[in-house]
Amino acid sequence: MKYLHTMVRVSDIAASLRFYCDLLGLREVRRTNNEAGRYTLVFLAAPGDEAAQVELTDNWDPEEYRGGRNFGHLAYEVDDIYAACETLMAGGVTIARPPRDGRMAFVRSPDGISIELLQAGGALPTREPWLSMPNSGTW
Amino acid sequence: MKYLHTMVRVSDIAASLRFYCDLLGLREVRRTNNEAGRYTLVFLAAPGDEAAQVELTDNWDPEEYRGGRNFGHLAYEVDDIYAACETLMAGGVTIARPPRDGRMAFVRSPDGISIELLQAGGALPTREPWLSMPNSGTW
Repeated sequence: MKYLHTMVRVSDIAASLRFYCDLLGLREVRRTNNEAGRYTLVFLAAPGDEAAQVELTDNWDPEEYRGGRNFGHLAYEVDDIYAACETLMAGGVTIARPPRDGRMAFVRSPDGISIELLQAGGALPTREPWLSMPNSGTW
Repeated sequence: MKYLHTMVRVSDIAASLRFYCDLLGLREVRRTNNEAGRYTLVFLAAPGDEAAQVELTDNWDPEEYRGGRNFGHLAYEVDDIYAACETLMAGGVTIARPPRDGRMAFVRSPDGISIELLQAGGALPTREPWLSMPNSGTW
Protein backbone atom coordinates (compact mmCIF):
# COMPACT_ATOMS: atom_id res chain seq x y z
CA MET A 1 0.00 0.00 0.00
CA LYS A 2 1.37 3.36 -0.98
CA TYR A 3 0.29 6.99 -0.70
CA LEU A 4 -0.29 8.55 -4.11
CA HIS A 5 -1.83 12.01 -3.79
CA THR A 6 -4.20 14.42 -2.12
CA MET A 7 -6.76 15.96 -4.46
CA VAL A 8 -8.01 19.52 -4.05
CA ARG A 9 -10.37 21.37 -6.39
CA VAL A 10 -9.28 24.71 -7.80
CA SER A 11 -11.22 27.47 -9.51
CA ASP A 12 -8.37 28.96 -11.58
CA ILE A 13 -5.46 26.85 -12.83
CA ALA A 14 -3.24 29.81 -13.71
CA ALA A 15 -3.66 31.37 -10.26
CA SER A 16 -3.13 27.97 -8.65
CA LEU A 17 0.07 27.21 -10.59
CA ARG A 18 1.41 30.66 -9.73
CA PHE A 19 0.83 29.84 -6.06
CA TYR A 20 1.82 26.16 -5.91
CA CYS A 21 4.71 26.28 -8.41
CA ASP A 22 6.09 29.84 -8.81
CA LEU A 23 5.72 30.84 -5.17
CA LEU A 24 5.68 27.60 -3.18
CA GLY A 25 8.15 25.59 -5.28
CA LEU A 26 6.20 22.53 -6.46
CA ARG A 27 6.52 21.39 -10.07
CA GLU A 28 3.95 20.15 -12.57
CA VAL A 29 4.42 16.40 -13.10
CA ARG A 30 1.59 15.66 -15.54
CA ARG A 31 -1.69 17.05 -16.82
CA THR A 32 -4.83 15.68 -18.47
CA ASN A 33 -7.70 17.51 -20.11
CA ASN A 34 -10.99 15.64 -20.20
CA GLU A 35 -13.29 17.27 -22.77
CA ALA A 36 -16.21 14.91 -22.06
CA GLY A 37 -16.00 15.36 -18.30
CA ARG A 38 -15.21 19.08 -18.65
CA TYR A 39 -12.29 19.04 -16.24
CA THR A 40 -8.51 19.37 -16.16
CA LEU A 41 -6.26 17.49 -13.75
CA VAL A 42 -2.79 18.82 -12.91
CA PHE A 43 -0.46 16.72 -10.75
CA LEU A 44 2.23 18.56 -8.75
CA ALA A 45 5.13 17.37 -6.62
CA ALA A 46 8.14 18.75 -4.80
CA PRO A 47 11.33 18.45 -6.91
CA GLY A 48 13.03 15.17 -6.00
CA ASP A 49 9.93 13.92 -4.15
CA GLU A 50 7.73 13.03 -7.14
CA ALA A 51 6.04 10.00 -5.52
CA ALA A 52 3.88 12.12 -3.19
CA GLN A 53 1.68 14.34 -5.31
CA VAL A 54 -1.05 16.94 -5.11
CA GLU A 55 -3.78 16.63 -7.73
CA LEU A 56 -5.46 19.90 -8.72
CA THR A 57 -8.90 19.36 -10.24
CA ASP A 58 -10.26 22.24 -12.29
CA ASN A 59 -13.92 21.71 -13.13
CA TRP A 60 -14.61 23.90 -16.15
CA ASP A 61 -18.08 24.79 -14.96
CA PRO A 62 -17.58 27.39 -12.23
CA GLU A 63 -18.28 26.53 -8.63
CA GLU A 64 -17.50 28.45 -5.47
CA TYR A 65 -15.28 26.63 -2.99
CA ARG A 66 -15.54 27.12 0.74
CA GLY A 67 -13.17 25.31 3.02
CA GLY A 68 -14.78 22.48 4.98
CA ARG A 69 -13.53 22.21 8.53
CA ASN A 70 -12.79 18.50 8.32
CA PHE A 71 -9.97 19.03 5.83
CA GLY A 72 -7.05 20.62 7.62
CA HIS A 73 -3.95 21.25 5.52
CA LEU A 74 -1.14 19.95 3.34
CA ALA A 75 2.30 20.01 4.98
CA TYR A 76 5.72 20.41 3.37
CA GLU A 77 9.20 20.46 4.80
CA VAL A 78 11.36 23.26 3.34
CA ASP A 79 15.10 23.92 3.40
CA ASP A 80 14.75 27.57 4.50
CA ILE A 81 11.42 28.64 5.94
CA TYR A 82 12.36 32.35 5.88
CA ALA A 83 13.29 32.24 2.19
CA ALA A 84 10.08 30.32 1.42
CA CYS A 85 7.95 32.91 3.24
CA GLU A 86 9.82 35.82 1.62
CA THR A 87 9.07 34.41 -1.83
CA LEU A 88 5.41 33.90 -0.97
CA MET A 89 5.07 37.37 0.55
CA ALA A 90 6.81 39.01 -2.42
CA GLY A 91 4.23 37.25 -4.57
CA GLY A 92 1.35 38.78 -2.65
CA VAL A 93 0.53 35.81 -0.41
CA THR A 94 -0.43 36.62 3.19
CA ILE A 95 1.67 34.72 5.73
CA ALA A 96 -1.26 33.77 7.98
CA ARG A 97 1.00 32.28 10.64
CA PRO A 98 4.49 33.82 10.27
CA PRO A 99 7.53 31.71 11.26
CA ARG A 100 8.13 33.64 14.49
CA ASP A 101 9.70 30.51 15.99
CA GLY A 102 11.89 29.80 12.93
CA ARG A 103 10.06 26.52 12.56
CA MET A 104 6.47 26.70 11.33
CA ALA A 105 4.38 28.85 8.99
CA PHE A 106 0.93 28.65 7.41
CA VAL A 107 -0.37 30.18 4.18
CA ARG A 108 -3.49 29.62 2.09
CA SER A 109 -3.84 28.77 -1.59
CA PRO A 110 -6.01 31.00 -3.83
CA ASP A 111 -8.93 28.64 -3.02
CA GLY A 112 -8.33 28.70 0.73
CA ILE A 113 -6.47 25.40 1.06
CA SER A 114 -4.25 25.69 4.12
CA ILE A 115 -0.55 24.85 3.61
CA GLU A 116 1.84 24.22 6.50
CA LEU A 117 5.56 24.84 6.04
CA LEU A 118 8.01 23.24 8.44
CA GLN A 119 11.74 23.96 8.67
CA ALA A 120 13.80 20.88 7.81
CA GLY A 121 16.15 19.84 10.62
CA GLY A 122 14.45 21.90 13.35
CA ALA A 123 14.02 25.60 14.11
CA LEU A 124 16.28 28.29 12.64
CA PRO A 125 17.45 31.15 14.94
CA THR A 126 14.57 33.62 15.35
CA ARG A 127 14.85 36.73 13.22
CA GLU A 128 13.03 39.95 12.30
CA PRO A 129 10.74 40.83 10.59
CA TRP A 130 9.23 37.42 11.37
CA LEU A 131 9.72 37.56 15.13
CA SER A 132 7.37 40.55 15.50
CA MET A 133 4.89 39.65 12.77
CA PRO A 134 1.34 38.99 14.06
CA ASN A 135 -0.96 36.25 12.86
CA SER A 136 -3.38 37.15 10.11
CA GLY A 137 -6.75 35.42 9.86
CA THR A 138 -7.10 31.67 10.29
CA TRP A 139 -5.37 28.75 8.62
CA MET B 1 11.22 20.46 -0.32
CA LYS B 2 9.37 17.35 0.74
CA TYR B 3 5.77 16.31 1.25
CA LEU B 4 5.06 15.46 4.90
CA HIS B 5 1.36 14.89 5.46
CA THR B 6 -2.27 15.77 4.82
CA MET B 7 -4.21 16.70 7.94
CA VAL B 8 -7.88 15.86 8.38
CA ARG B 9 -9.99 16.48 11.48
CA VAL B 10 -11.83 13.56 13.03
CA SER B 11 -14.66 13.42 15.55
CA ASP B 12 -13.92 9.95 17.01
CA ILE B 13 -10.39 8.53 17.14
CA ALA B 14 -11.51 4.94 17.82
CA ALA B 15 -13.90 4.94 14.87
CA SER B 16 -11.23 6.58 12.71
CA LEU B 17 -8.51 4.07 13.64
CA ARG B 18 -10.91 1.22 12.95
CA PHE B 19 -11.48 2.66 9.47
CA TYR B 20 -7.97 3.87 8.56
CA CYS B 21 -5.99 1.06 10.23
CA ASP B 22 -8.13 -2.07 10.75
CA LEU B 23 -10.09 -1.79 7.51
CA LEU B 24 -7.94 0.28 5.16
CA GLY B 25 -4.50 -0.97 6.24
CA LEU B 26 -2.65 2.15 7.44
CA ARG B 27 -0.62 2.00 10.65
CA GLU B 28 -0.22 4.43 13.52
CA VAL B 29 3.25 6.01 13.38
CA ARG B 30 3.07 8.40 16.34
CA ARG B 31 0.61 10.18 18.59
CA THR B 32 0.60 13.30 20.79
CA ASN B 33 -1.93 14.42 23.35
CA ASN B 34 -2.00 18.15 24.02
CA GLU B 35 -3.83 18.80 27.30
CA ALA B 36 -3.54 22.59 27.03
CA GLY B 37 -4.76 22.72 23.45
CA ARG B 38 -7.35 19.99 24.11
CA TYR B 39 -6.48 17.93 21.05
CA THR B 40 -4.89 14.63 20.05
CA LEU B 41 -2.83 14.15 16.91
CA VAL B 42 -2.41 10.67 15.39
CA PHE B 43 -0.08 10.20 12.43
CA LEU B 44 -0.76 7.27 10.08
CA ALA B 45 1.13 5.82 7.14
CA ALA B 46 1.02 2.84 4.82
CA PRO B 47 3.40 0.07 5.98
CA GLY B 48 6.74 0.58 4.20
CA ASP B 49 5.75 4.09 3.04
CA GLU B 50 6.16 5.96 6.33
CA ALA B 51 7.40 9.22 4.79
CA ALA B 52 3.98 10.19 3.43
CA GLN B 53 1.57 10.50 6.35
CA VAL B 54 -1.99 11.38 7.23
CA GLU B 55 -2.42 13.43 10.39
CA LEU B 56 -5.71 12.89 12.24
CA THR B 57 -6.60 15.80 14.50
CA ASP B 58 -9.13 15.08 17.20
CA ASN B 59 -10.30 18.27 18.89
CA TRP B 60 -11.66 17.23 22.27
CA ASP B 61 -14.44 19.79 22.14
CA PRO B 62 -17.04 18.33 19.78
CA GLU B 63 -17.63 19.89 16.40
CA GLU B 64 -19.63 18.63 13.46
CA TYR B 65 -17.67 18.13 10.25
CA ARG B 66 -19.16 18.60 6.83
CA GLY B 67 -17.07 17.96 3.77
CA GLY B 68 -16.03 21.11 1.92
CA ARG B 69 -16.11 20.74 -1.83
CA ASN B 70 -12.61 22.13 -2.34
CA PHE B 71 -10.99 19.16 -0.62
CA GLY B 72 -11.33 16.13 -2.87
CA HIS B 73 -9.75 12.94 -1.56
CA LEU B 74 -6.70 11.02 -0.40
CA ALA B 75 -5.46 8.37 -2.84
CA TYR B 76 -3.67 5.09 -2.12
CA GLU B 77 -2.35 2.40 -4.39
CA VAL B 78 -3.19 -1.13 -3.13
CA ASP B 79 -1.88 -4.58 -4.06
CA ASP B 80 -5.36 -6.12 -4.51
CA ILE B 81 -8.27 -3.75 -4.88
CA TYR B 82 -10.86 -6.55 -4.54
CA ALA B 83 -9.35 -7.78 -1.27
CA ALA B 84 -9.17 -4.20 0.02
CA CYS B 85 -12.85 -3.59 -0.80
CA GLU B 86 -13.90 -6.93 0.68
CA THR B 87 -12.22 -6.04 3.98
CA LEU B 88 -13.85 -2.62 4.02
CA MET B 89 -17.29 -4.00 3.15
CA ALA B 90 -17.01 -6.77 5.76
CA GLY B 91 -16.27 -3.97 8.25
CA GLY B 92 -19.48 -2.15 7.37
CA VAL B 93 -18.03 0.46 5.02
CA THR B 94 -20.10 1.32 1.94
CA ILE B 95 -18.13 0.99 -1.30
CA ALA B 96 -19.39 4.24 -2.84
CA ARG B 97 -17.73 3.56 -6.17
CA PRO B 98 -17.14 -0.21 -6.49
CA PRO B 99 -14.13 -1.44 -8.53
CA ARG B 100 -16.26 -2.54 -11.49
CA ASP B 101 -13.27 -1.93 -13.76
CA GLY B 102 -10.80 -3.76 -11.51
CA ARG B 103 -8.90 -0.53 -11.17
CA MET B 104 -10.55 2.17 -9.03
CA ALA B 105 -12.76 2.39 -5.96
CA PHE B 106 -13.92 5.13 -3.58
CA VAL B 107 -15.00 4.92 0.05
CA ARG B 108 -15.56 7.51 2.78
CA SER B 109 -14.07 7.73 6.27
CA PRO B 110 -16.42 8.00 9.28
CA ASP B 111 -16.14 11.81 8.93
CA GLY B 112 -16.87 11.80 5.21
CA ILE B 113 -13.29 12.12 3.93
CA SER B 114 -13.22 10.55 0.48
CA ILE B 115 -10.54 7.88 -0.11
CA GLU B 116 -9.57 6.67 -3.57
CA LEU B 117 -8.09 3.18 -4.00
CA LEU B 118 -6.16 2.37 -7.17
CA GLN B 119 -4.97 -1.07 -8.23
CA ALA B 120 -1.15 -1.21 -8.38
CA GLY B 121 0.14 -2.19 -11.82
CA GLY B 122 -3.10 -1.52 -13.70
CA ALA B 123 -6.57 -3.08 -13.79
CA LEU B 124 -7.29 -6.62 -12.58
CA PRO B 125 -9.65 -8.81 -14.67
CA THR B 126 -13.23 -7.72 -13.96
CA ARG B 127 -15.13 -9.95 -11.55
CA GLU B 128 -18.46 -10.32 -9.76
CA PRO B 129 -19.88 -9.15 -7.41
CA TRP B 130 -18.03 -5.94 -8.24
CA LEU B 131 -18.86 -5.88 -11.94
CA SER B 132 -22.62 -5.51 -11.27
CA MET B 133 -22.41 -3.36 -8.14
CA PRO B 134 -23.96 0.10 -8.56
CA ASN B 135 -22.55 3.34 -7.22
CA SER B 136 -23.79 4.47 -3.85
CA GLY B 137 -24.00 8.15 -2.98
CA THR B 138 -21.18 10.55 -3.84
CA TRP B 139 -17.47 10.47 -3.12
